[in-house]
Amino acid sequence: MDKKPSISPDEPKVKRGFDQKVFVNRSLTLENIKCYGFDMDYTLAIYKSPDYESMGFELIRDRMVSIGYPHELLRYTYDPTFPTRGLVIDTTYGNLLKVDSNGNILVCSHGFRFLKGEDIQNYYPNKFIQRDDTDRFYILNTLFNMSETYLYACLVDFFTRCSRYTNLLKGYQHGDLFMSYRSMFQDVRDAMDFIHDTGSLKERTIKNLEKYVLSDPNLTILLTRIKEVAKVFLATNSDYTYTEAIMKYLLESNVKTGSPKRSWRSFFDLVVVDTRKPLFFAGGTVLRQVDTDTGKLRIGTYTGDLQHGTVYSGGSSDIICDLLGVKGKDILYVGDHIFGDILKSKKRQGWKTFLVVPELTKELNVWEEKKNLFEELKRLDIFLAEIYKHLDSGSRECPDITAIQTRIKVLTYRMDMSYGQMGSLLRSGSRQTLFASQLMRYADLYSSTCINLLHYPFNYLFMAPPVLMPHEAASQISAEFKLSAEASQLR
Amino acid sequence: MDKKPSISPDEPKVKRGFDQKVFVNRSLTLENIKCYGFDMDYTLAIYKSPDYESMGFELIRDRMVSIGYPHELLRYTYDPTFPTRGLVIDTTYGNLLKVDSNGNILVCSHGFRFLKGEDIQNYYPNKFIQRDDTDRFYILNTLFNMSETYLYACLVDFFTRCSRYTNLLKGYQHGDLFMSYRSMFQDVRDAMDFIHDTGSLKERTIKNLEKYVLSDPNLTILLTRIKEVAKVFLATNSDYTYTEAIMKYLLESNVKTGSPKRSWRSFFDLVVVDTRKPLFFAGGTVLRQVDTDTGKLRIGTYTGDLQHGTVYSGGSSDIICDLLGVKGKDILYVGDHIFGDILKSKKRQGWKTFLVVPELTKELNVWEEKKNLFEELKRLDIFLAEIYKHLDSGSRECPDITAIQTRIKVLTYRMDMSYGQMGSLLRSGSRQTLFASQLMRYADLYSSTCINLLHYPFNYLFMAPPVLMPHEAASQISAEFKLSAEASQLR
Amino acid sequence: MDKKPSISPDEPKVKRGFDQKVFVNRSLTLENIKCYGFDMDYTLAIYKSPDYESMGFELIRDRMVSIGYPHELLRYTYDPTFPTRGLVIDTTYGNLLKVDSNGNILVCSHGFRFLKGEDIQNYYPNKFIQRDDTDRFYILNTLFNMSETYLYACLVDFFTRCSRYTNLLKGYQHGDLFMSYRSMFQDVRDAMDFIHDTGSLKERTIKNLEKYVLSDPNLTILLTRIKEVAKVFLATNSDYTYTEAIMKYLLESNVKTGSPKRSWRSFFDLVVVDTRKPLFFAGGTVLRQVDTDTGKLRIGTYTGDLQHGTVYSGGSSDIICDLLGVKGKDILYVGDHIFGDILKSKKRQGWKTFLVVPELTKELNVWEEKKNLFEELKRLDIFLAEIYKHLDSGSRECPDITAIQTRIKVLTYRMDMSYGQMGSLLRSGSRQTLFASQLMRYADLYSSTCINLLHYPFNYLFMAPPVLMPHEAASQISAEFKLSAEASQLR
Amino acid sequence: MDKKPSISPDEPKVKRGFDQKVFVNRSLTLENIKCYGFDMDYTLAIYKSPDYESMGFELIRDRMVSIGYPHELLRYTYDPTFPTRGLVIDTTYGNLLKVDSNGNILVCSHGFRFLKGEDIQNYYPNKFIQRDDTDRFYILNTLFNMSETYLYACLVDFFTRCSRYTNLLKGYQHGDLFMSYRSMFQDVRDAMDFIHDTGSLKERTIKNLEKYVLSDPNLTILLTRIKEVAKVFLATNSDYTYTEAIMKYLLESNVKTGSPKRSWRSFFDLVVVDTRKPLFFAGGTVLRQVDTDTGKLRIGTYTGDLQHGTVYSGGSSDIICDLLGVKGKDILYVGDHIFGDILKSKKRQGWKTFLVVPELTKELNVWEEKKNLFEELKRLDIFLAEIYKHLDSGSRECPDITAIQTRIKVLTYRMDMSYGQMGSLLRSGSRQTLFASQLMRYADLYSSTCINLLHYPFNYLFMAPPVLMPHEAASQISAEFKLSAEASQLR
Repeated sequence: MDKKPSISPDEPKVKRGFDQKVFVNRSLTLENIKCYGFDMDYTLAIYKSPDYESMGFELIRDRMVSIGYPHELLRYTYDPTFPTRGLVIDTTYGNLLKVDSNGNILVCSHGFRFLKGEDIQNYYPNKFIQRDDTDRFYILNTLFNMSETYLYACLVDFFTRCSRYTNLLKGYQHGDLFMSYRSMFQDVRDAMDFIHDTGSLKERTIKNLEKYVLSDPNLTILLTRIKEVAKVFLATNSDYTYTEAIMKYLLESNVKTGSPKRSWRSFFDLVVVDTRKPLFFAGGTVLRQVDTDTGKLRIGTYTGDLQHGTVYSGGSSDIICDLLGVKGKDILYVGDHIFGDILKSKKRQGWKTFLVVPELTKELNVWEEKKNLFEELKRLDIFLAEIYKHLDSGSRECPDITAIQTRIKVLTYRMDMSYGQMGSLLRSGSRQTLFASQLMRYADLYSSTCINLLHYPFNYLFMAPPVLMPHEAASQISAEFKLSAEASQLR
Repeated sequence: MDKKPSISPDEPKVKRGFDQKVFVNRSLTLENIKCYGFDMDYTLAIYKSPDYESMGFELIRDRMVSIGYPHELLRYTYDPTFPTRGLVIDTTYGNLLKVDSNGNILVCSHGFRFLKGEDIQNYYPNKFIQRDDTDRFYILNTLFNMSETYLYACLVDFFTRCSRYTNLLKGYQHGDLFMSYRSMFQDVRDAMDFIHDTGSLKERTIKNLEKYVLSDPNLTILLTRIKEVAKVFLATNSDYTYTEAIMKYLLESNVKTGSPKRSWRSFFDLVVVDTRKPLFFAGGTVLRQVDTDTGKLRIGTYTGDLQHGTVYSGGSSDIICDLLGVKGKDILYVGDHIFGDILKSKKRQGWKTFLVVPELTKELNVWEEKKNLFEELKRLDIFLAEIYKHLDSGSRECPDITAIQTRIKVLTYRMDMSYGQMGSLLRSGSRQTLFASQLMRYADLYSSTCINLLHYPFNYLFMAPPVLMPHEAASQISAEFKLSAEASQLR
Repeated sequence: MDKKPSISPDEPKVKRGFDQKVFVNRSLTLENIKCYGFDMDYTLAIYKSPDYESMGFELIRDRMVSIGYPHELLRYTYDPTFPTRGLVIDTTYGNLLKVDSNGNILVCSHGFRFLKGEDIQNYYPNKFIQRDDTDRFYILNTLFNMSETYLYACLVDFFTRCSRYTNLLKGYQHGDLFMSYRSMFQDVRDAMDFIHDTGSLKERTIKNLEKYVLSDPNLTILLTRIKEVAKVFLATNSDYTYTEAIMKYLLESNVKTGSPKRSWRSFFDLVVVDTRKPLFFAGGTVLRQVDTDTGKLRIGTYTGDLQHGTVYSGGSSDIICDLLGVKGKDILYVGDHIFGDILKSKKRQGWKTFLVVPELTKELNVWEEKKNLFEELKRLDIFLAEIYKHLDSGSRECPDITAIQTRIKVLTYRMDMSYGQMGSLLRSGSRQTLFASQLMRYADLYSSTCINLLHYPFNYLFMAPPVLMPHEAASQISAEFKLSAEASQLR
Repeated sequence: MDKKPSISPDEPKVKRGFDQKVFVNRSLTLENIKCYGFDMDYTLAIYKSPDYESMGFELIRDRMVSIGYPHELLRYTYDPTFPTRGLVIDTTYGNLLKVDSNGNILVCSHGFRFLKGEDIQNYYPNKFIQRDDTDRFYILNTLFNMSETYLYACLVDFFTRCSRYTNLLKGYQHGDLFMSYRSMFQDVRDAMDFIHDTGSLKERTIKNLEKYVLSDPNLTILLTRIKEVAKVFLATNSDYTYTEAIMKYLLESNVKTGSPKRSWRSFFDLVVVDTRKPLFFAGGTVLRQVDTDTGKLRIGTYTGDLQHGTVYSGGSSDIICDLLGVKGKDILYVGDHIFGDILKSKKRQGWKTFLVVPELTKELNVWEEKKNLFEELKRLDIFLAEIYKHLDSGSRECPDITAIQTRIKVLTYRMDMSYGQMGSLLRSGSRQTLFASQLMRYADLYSSTCINLLHYPFNYLFMAPPVLMPHEAASQISAEFKLSAEASQLR
């Protein structure tokens, strides 16, 4: 992305490549958008993978050891090919699960060992989890969760193989000590909170911004252009000090020589830190003003008109709408968190939503390369369907489809492996993940980066592909079939 | 449906027509199903429309008058062309709403008057409802709700036009009396409960079964065939007396002369009445045995093995699985209630689901007839998309698309009107309804009637059409485009 | 009570006897009360005991048999000496419990068998129940519950002794049938609801008012006098038809010859039926007007000023305050239901409360008669205390107090038996029941009947006895002791 | 308390003075207690008042200024005569309230200004709060809350009087800034959490233990004696490091020369830190072992037998009972927190409870000194009662009692002032506070310090004074009256 300073108003229009595209789940007329909102982390500020996840992994791994976990853990290093975002931890049995939108299990690993069908059924007789049971199942929805996901797998791997520990159904025994999968999960979560709360993650990020944060000069161009046609706000759960460090780096350090020096805050009509999304989209908290000199909160609540460049802390989406004088459907909110940013803003407030999915670049590349696998899967499906087509409930015929099913499994596995050990973020063979189904339900638009908005005019009409229901599609196909059949008769 | 006695084991296989098809949202291997469960009302027992809804309408209308509503209401009769299933009543403003899965308003009527864009925005500035607010919004999900839906529209129509009443935002004023939309809604609900609880609806149904209930001889064939390959149970919220009357009519009165007389209960391994779905899929209630001689409950809880033909009352889905010795994913449950039957059995128990959608016959017919409208809509969409394709965020060009947008509105309206005044159950123009999205998420299979299972062998593989995400589809299309482009170069 | 027409303005003042007294938990200046509210059942309308409970018992007993319980149950008849109000049913083990305010068990019976200490500990190792677990423990708070309480004991008695059934921990086994204590409890509750909902209880009451309802001519005097100085309302959970029948009997049939005929409604500024207390004291329901000619509800909500003698249905305590123009602390609410009437009106609305405790007449009589037992208990307590008084933590002395403890148990048992098999409503020996502690916390005033208000002027100051905390009392006593000691020295 | 090294096994028994007494709400046989549990803060470790509260006050005051509150606040210093424990903050109107158990307001201050009747009614028309509304009303139940209570009063005092701020109903306006009472409350709470979480309060305490913590040599005697007859545990919400510092000071530094050095942990069978009461009495958290060398938690959960002197972190009351092999009623739990320690252990677990109320020493002294005021109050009450005694509802007489009521108010005020500006912890005139009523309901025993247990043998019978209900007392009194009347006639 660093290599795209080429796009500027005076250059010739280029055809948008795949990784420059914005994809559409529900049609959206950009012309109607009066206000653009942005999350910061993983939205404006793209953390460099896998360096950033590696650092996070090391911090929590070291923390685990410092609270008493065995020193052998220090041997593990982050392996970006293992985890996929959107996995579910089963805190009872210590498994990592990849599930579809209904809770059916697609992939299951115990540590780094991937379980086969029968093994999965030992744990989950119905190959299904009640994912509403949030007390037991924890969804690793964000890119921040990647290091946790991997660390948890490391722990399970270590204790399972370490001869000092006896493997039990719900954890490990070592002398008088029982270590449950649940308590290990709690310890990982606490370690994660620890490195966030003590600021050690932020500190190390800020110390080495070049290494951890992508700086794209197109971002200033994008924000400048948007501000000419609409209002712009930033709404981040980060605190002011961190926000300022990151935004300065992104918007002030990249300026061409000769350009006038411009404060990062001047790119926004409104900056809100400490937003506590998803609470922000419901009741919210008290809105306070930030003293940008000291970074401290002003006491009391601001009640006056919006002043340009002012920074606030807290508040709620309702207050933001009031301050900016816009309604929910006038806002396009760009974020990376499917639950905290996108689902909540959409369901509670009716905002238009744009999900940033950094993995999409890779997903598209693999898809391009391995499309033939998917094509073969599709052909096998059609082939299978054909076999049964002319049977009815009175038929005694019993087609042998084992060979085809085996082939389907092989293809699915090969496709999955092209993405990484846990497979794609979005699918497993021909089945979609929970993440994919939520992306399709709640994000109006999505792309690998918000910079891709640059490639579209601000009066653009994002048109969703028509979604046909199975019975509509069936009718469609057969109609086309009839037409072509008729046509062929005419020849 | 009455005219389909043609399908029987000894007849030649026929190509399945559209209204004989079972449609597939998620692939399902029928061979793996060890147990079929059926709801009764609107599933095995299809009530004849509009006669049945008319009767229901009259009963609650008369009840309303008898509790004090004006006699003028008696002039209203049921109009099947007005209501569509799945509408939402806004109990605050008295409107009927058709919404999409995110709560965006597709159609809005106040009484029989359909509101235009600006009028809708007066009520709902964001053209959006927070549909989780179930205290305010009531979803009319079942076919039993059709008469209520229409009666509520009649009330609003009457009071709005009656000069004795003053129209206020949240209801009507008449002297010292204020009648809120909310209390009117409560009265309709109470009237509905009244005709159910006092049994007047059931009584009139049983008195005239020929008029109100469809009797399809294929049902006995279907159940007989299923029972040869799997377990079968009936799970209905109705009580035993009514269940017996209906099932006798469906399964015992239709027998060909010469066939041995056979009890309706013999078609099932297990019959459960008073199930109280959706509670049945969660904690459930105490399971009791029904004394089939007296129709009364036996005291105590049955603890023994399953005895064939025994009738139970209450219980839960877990108990049913235990009694039948099956797991959730072994069960295909066939029902008509998207929430109580399908969503709950799927989300809580991981059952396979088959939704009966009686409206589908009509939906398919209209779709067939008016497909050209949809085709034109699609062409306009593509045309619109093309206009913007080569612009980027630096463009100053501003295409005039008003004419196209007007045409899209006209087409959407014409499509909607082909289904009825409230439009299709499943879509409004190119946008899908909440009902459609729930159908796609929770029903593995769906069809206009469960009898259509007859047209498939019990080892059938129902294959879902592949669902591509927008970015996958985009890649697909362009690939095809590239291919054809290359091909054309070759010529 | 029938024999007290003696009180009238022109008669000489008499010293109030015990059963004519109103007792005071918290001081209350009657002069400040601007509004009196009354519940109807067991407050204005005192049902004659044990005739009324007997009838209730028979109705639910017969209902139980008609839903399948053994005919042998018909042999049981109501025994008023067994049940006490305020008992708790443990639906898991089928026991009846009398508990103190902290959930410590005072008395425990299984059927009619009273359990000894060790037996109680088998069920409840800590002799304690977590009474917040309302799913398991059901409190029989009202006089309406007396017949249920007794019937449940009959069921447990019958099945425990019937040789056809095997006794298990949580119920009875009979062949394949398991009857849990929990389902038996549910059946009793359902039977109770049945006789209420079908109106059979009310019907039989109305048919024989003389037999079941006490008619006290002083009631018209009381209401007349109150209405001269304050507003008066009736707020009952009963429906209009029943309310009218009862109130007519109480207020219109008792008039002296020569007095002008006066409608029962004229005694009240406001009559509210169908109040659904305790919901009435929280959100409430929609307020509707009752058409007193037909007994039916008027549609819509009344919004005008209060019209004298109008009857309403539903509403809430807030609406009542608005209609009457009074604030919570201006109201003295007289009711019999410790939870629905008294606790809720006090905690949620700050009303002044008067609890009618019909059992108080008997409680006072027994107390009077058996006071010597209590006195002896008290003396034993003091004696015991003395034994330990001069020991400290270094003492090795170990007084033998077994004989005294046995005597205390004997006295407690004898006291309890004077009230009935389950003992007093209010105490067990020197320990108070849950009911007693709630009475003391939530009822400002209490008496055996509301008629006793007649014996006090409407500017009366009800003065609560001073409540000293143990450390204050200790200081007090010793001070008095010192004084008298000093005094004795002087002699 | 420092001056009581006098009590030792070999000294003569002395009569217990008032401040050495343990008071009894519910009789309790110490002989049955098999296990004693202790809280640490304000129970074993009594913080010296007002030094400790002053330090807490200064820390949060300084924190407030450092987050932006005006520097003028630094002028305020802690005034121990102002706050009383158990007050309620109304976060809507910024008032401090003293209430009785039903939510009736006894005293109300706004800043340091005490409101009169009419002013109170402006805020609370019913002089009553719905104290279940915990979102609005915050109860300052613990001695730790004293500095907060006072600081909040300072804030209200300052802003009310500062001319830069305009007083509004729910807060203050200053230019564009609105400071609500609610946000001020939130800031005080956050400041309190800050000084706890950052450890600054603990740090300063540990640095100057002599100044802040009372060291009583009798404590080692008490714990030694208890351990001879029963099990002993410590259960504190504090962390291990702080617990160790405090307990060392209390139990190891006080040893007489010549006595063998003994670890503080050896006084307990079990030490549990980080208990998170009240959660500890419900579900609790994971139990972990503390490495007493490093103070860090061991990973995993301890599953073996209880080892003497082991320190645990977390867990729950159920686990503690299991580890110690005792049942709820075998335990006497000694704590200072009416809600977290006493109410919860009693209601959820049926433990016996001992509440430490350090204020009791002062309360008893004032009570002793000012008893004459209370006596006069009592006499006035009796006098008032007499005036009305012979009137009934027909009376027209209207006694003038204004003078008496004024006198009662004066006396109540004078009594209140003897305790401090907010009056007694336990009463206001003849009315008891919420704290007093909770103390009476939930604490079986109470005393100013747990050391007072030393004055009782471990087989002691704590006998509660008999509690008579008003009707019982009335009967009692009149009986005595009758007796004396009869006696006088005999003369």
